[in-house]
Amino acid sequence: MDRIKIHAPATVANLSCGFDVLGLCLNHPYDEIEVSKILERKVTLEILESPYSNIPDNPNDNTGGVPAQLIQKDLDFGFHIKIKKGIPLCGGLGSSAATSVGVVYAINCLLDSKLSQKQMLEYALEGEKISASNPHADNIAPCLLGGLTLIRDTKSLDVINIPVENYYVALIHPHIEIKTEQARNILPKNVKLDIAIKQWGNVGALIFGLSSNNKELIKRSMEDFIVEPVRSNLIEGFYTIKNNAIKLGSIGSGISGSGPTIFAICESKIIATEILEFSNSYYKSLNIGCDVFLSKINDSGPIIV
Amino acid sequence: MDRIKIHAPATVANLSCGFDVLGLCLNHPYDEIEVSKILERKVTLEILESPYSNIPDNPNDNTGGVPAQLIQKDLDFGFHIKIKKGIPLCGGLGSSAATSVGVVYAINCLLDSKLSQKQMLEYALEGEKISASNPHADNIAPCLLGGLTLIRDTKSLDVINIPVENYYVALIHPHIEIKTEQARNILPKNVKLDIAIKQWGNVGALIFGLSSNNKELIKRSMEDFIVEPVRSNLIEGFYTIKNNAIKLGSIGSGISGSGPTIFAICESKIIATEILEFSNSYYKSLNIGCDVFLSKINDSGPIIV
Repeated sequence: MDRIKIHAPATVANLSCGFDVLGLCLNHPYDEIEVSKILERKVTLEILESPYSNIPDNPNDNTGGVPAQLIQKDLDFGFHIKIKKGIPLCGGLGSSAATSVGVVYAINCLLDSKLSQKQMLEYALEGEKISASNPHADNIAPCLLGGLTLIRDTKSLDVINIPVENYYVALIHPHIEIKTEQARNILPKNVKLDIAIKQWGNVGALIFGLSSNNKELIKRSMEDFIVEPVRSNLIEGFYTIKNNAIKLGSIGSGISGSGPTIFAICESKIIATEILEFSNSYYKSLNIGCDVFLSKINDSGPIIV
Repeated sequence: MDRIKIHAPATVANLSCGFDVLGLCLNHPYDEIEVSKILERKVTLEILESPYSNIPDNPNDNTGGVPAQLIQKDLDFGFHIKIKKGIPLCGGLGSSAATSVGVVYAINCLLDSKLSQKQMLEYALEGEKISASNPHADNIAPCLLGGLTLIRDTKSLDVINIPVENYYVALIHPHIEIKTEQARNILPKNVKLDIAIKQWGNVGALIFGLSSNNKELIKRSMEDFIVEPVRSNLIEGFYTIKNNAIKLGSIGSGISGSGPTIFAICESKIIATEILEFSNSYYKSLNIGCDVFLSKINDSGPIIV
C-alpha cells in the first residue's frame, strides 16, 4: 500500500473530575488525513482548505509533521501528507492530538503495522510537544485507542481502555479564545488534601459508573472541585449551558479539555439535539459565534476511509 | 427474636492510594457481639474477657454503646450488649467501626430490619465519633456492606459496592502504638496538583483493576504518593515487610487504615502464609511483638452466628 486516507477523531479530555487522566473518543468532528509514500527521503505537508486550515505547513512546526519526520528517519523513502482539518483549533477537542495521532496511525498502516501501540503513542506525544510545553496523553490516548481511556501514568504511558456504553455526546464550541497554556496557568499549583480526596472519590466512582453503565452514579460523580471552578470563568455562559444540559436530561456535562468547548453526555439523540438547539440560540443571543457537534462515542479510534 | 449473636468483621481502609475512600471487608479477625432485648428502657454493656478487652463499658464512651442509645431512644424496651473484642485496638483494622457496626447490625436484626442501610451507616458513624473527631466511613461502610466499598462522598454517605475477587489477605500487626489522631495530624494539609493527579490516576486504575480482576493493573496502581510516604515513618520495618510481600508474590501491600497493621493481598494461601511467616520472624528479630491474621475477603459484612 502506497497511500492511505483516514479520519482522526476529536476527543474530550478530563470528563470533569478526571483531570489529565481521562479521555473519550468521538466520531465527530474529525480531521481527514491522507499519507502517500514518496521516493524522496523527506516529509512534505499540504494543508487542504477547511474552516480550520490555519495551521503550519512546515513539518517542523506541525503536530503531524514532527512524528512523521521522526519515523521517516529510519526509512529509505518519505511521505507526503495532506491534512484537512475538521476539528476546531484551540477548542478543547484534541485538535492537535488528532493530527498527530492521525499521521502516525496512517504511516503505521503504510508500514504494515510495524509500530506497537505504545510506539505510536510515543511518536504522537512528540507531536503534541509542538502545542504544549508539558504534553499529556489524555487526548492522544483516546484518539488512538478509541472509547474511554484512563492514563494511569503519563511517564510510562500506562493507558487503560475502560469499556463504556455508546452514549451520545453533545458538543458546544463557543467562539471564545482560550490558549491551552493560559488554561493551564490559571490552575492552582496546590490543592487541599480534603478536596483532593473528594476528587479521587469522584474519579473512582465515575470510572466504575461508566464501566458498569450506572447512569445515576455517573451523574453524581461527574463533579469537579478543582479545575472547572477556575476554568469556567474563561467561558462565558458555561453554567447556563451546563445547568440546562442537566435539566434537559444529560447524565454529565463539563468543560472539554481546556475548553471552551462544553460537552454533555446523553442517553438519547433527542436530548443531545435539544441541548445543542438551546446552546446555539443562547450564544446567538450573546452575539458569540458557536459551532455545535453531535457525536456518538467512537470505540475504535482512527478510521480508514 | 429477643437475642442475637453476630461476628463484626475487621476492615482494611484506604488500600494504599484510595485514602479515605476505599475499604475492604475481612473474615478475620472479628468482634463477637451479642445483643439481648431487656425490659428496662436503657442500654447496658458488658465487655467479655479477651486480649483486647480494654475498652470502656460505659455506653456513653463506647462506639457500640452510643448508637445503641440513639436507637433505643424511640423504643419502649432496652438492650444488653456483650462485646468480645477479637480485633486489636488502634491497629488500623477498623476495631472501633466493627463494634459500632456490629451493635447496630445486631439491633437491626432484633428490630426486624426496620433500619435502612443508610440509617445503619448513619448510626454507626455516630459511634465512630467517639474514637475520631472527624469520623470517616471507610471502615464502617465495608464492615456493614462487605466486599470492597468506595465512599464517593462522606457527607451524603454515597457508598458504592465494587465487585472484587475473593483474594487472600495477609495482615501483620506489629505492636507499635499509633493513635488515629496522630496518624492524621502528620498528613500534609495540601498536596501538589501534579501529585494529586497521579494519585487519582491510581485510584481509578485500582478500582477498574479490582472490579475487572486485572492483577497486573492492581499491582501497578496500588501505589500511594501522599499518605504512605509519611505514615510509613511511624511503622518500623514497614518497607521490609512490604517489599518482601511483593517479592513473595503479593499483588499489593500497604498500610491498613492508619496503621500499624500492614496488609498484603494475595492470590494464594501459600503466598499469604509465607508473608506472615517472614513477618513474624522479622519482628521477632527486632524484639517487637506481632499478631498476624490470614483472611479471605468477606463479601457479606457481619455474620449471624
